[in-house]
Amino acid sequence: MDDPEAVHRANEAFYTAFESADFDAMSDMWEHSDRVTCVHPGWTVLRGWASVGASWVAMFQGPERLQFILTDERVEVAGDLAWVTLDENIIGARAATVTALNLFTRTPAGWRLLAHHGSGVAGGVS
Amino acid sequence: MDDPEAVHRANEAFYTAFESADFDAMSDMWEHSDRVTCVHPGWTVLRGWASVGASWVAMFQGPERLQFILTDERVEVAGDLAWVTLDENIIGARAATVTALNLFTRTPAGWRLLAHHGSGVAGGVS
Repeated sequence: MDDPEAVHRANEAFYTAFESADFDAMSDMWEHSDRVTCVHPGWTVLRGWASVGASWVAMFQGPERLQFILTDERVEVAGDLAWVTLDENIIGARAATVTALNLFTRTPAGWRLLAHHGSGVAGGVS
Repeated sequence: MDDPEAVHRANEAFYTAFESADFDAMSDMWEHSDRVTCVHPGWTVLRGWASVGASWVAMFQGPERLQFILTDERVEVAGDLAWVTLDENIIGARAATVTALNLFTRTPAGWRLLAHHGSGVAGGVS
């Protein structure tokens, strides 16, 4: 498996964890460090795994489950970092499009998230 | 000047070009390639320098000039890539807060932008 394919699969695993509200799987996809950041649509930036992880716990404890159709994905790899840009097309009651930038770092265990930044496309969520 | 300081200064130069609506200065801060991406608040992702550059031309041709107070900036460097997270506090008639992730690459000429992703904080712009 080449690097772009491995990053693509790590990105998919992130969204699978998100859709299934599986915190253990979500936790596995992130670097657990102070340098990670996460921006959910309309939110301020969360810094550090403690804050980022807590945001996923809170989301997954709620009743809402999101389903995504991922489109327009591009993977770029540069050394031990990689980034993915794509659209998250949320289906169901809260239909909306979120455009996202996901930054990954190479680790012995595979590619792990350093940053997720999602923002609503006008006409969708904020 | 160490790497984080050099990235901090490149990030500042990006916002100075933005505030002064100086397209030449803005152009100088970006890698001119197909892999660059830019998300303005509420927009879909723009890919490639041709599209990204055109968006700055269009913005700078308009009458609006934005002024920023930049806060909560963090710089991370990993090899030849670096990323900055910060809040853009827009002052004036369109007061709002945008949270941004800026991804840079090291070049012989200095650090250059690979990606800018800005999104409105709820209560601010979308």
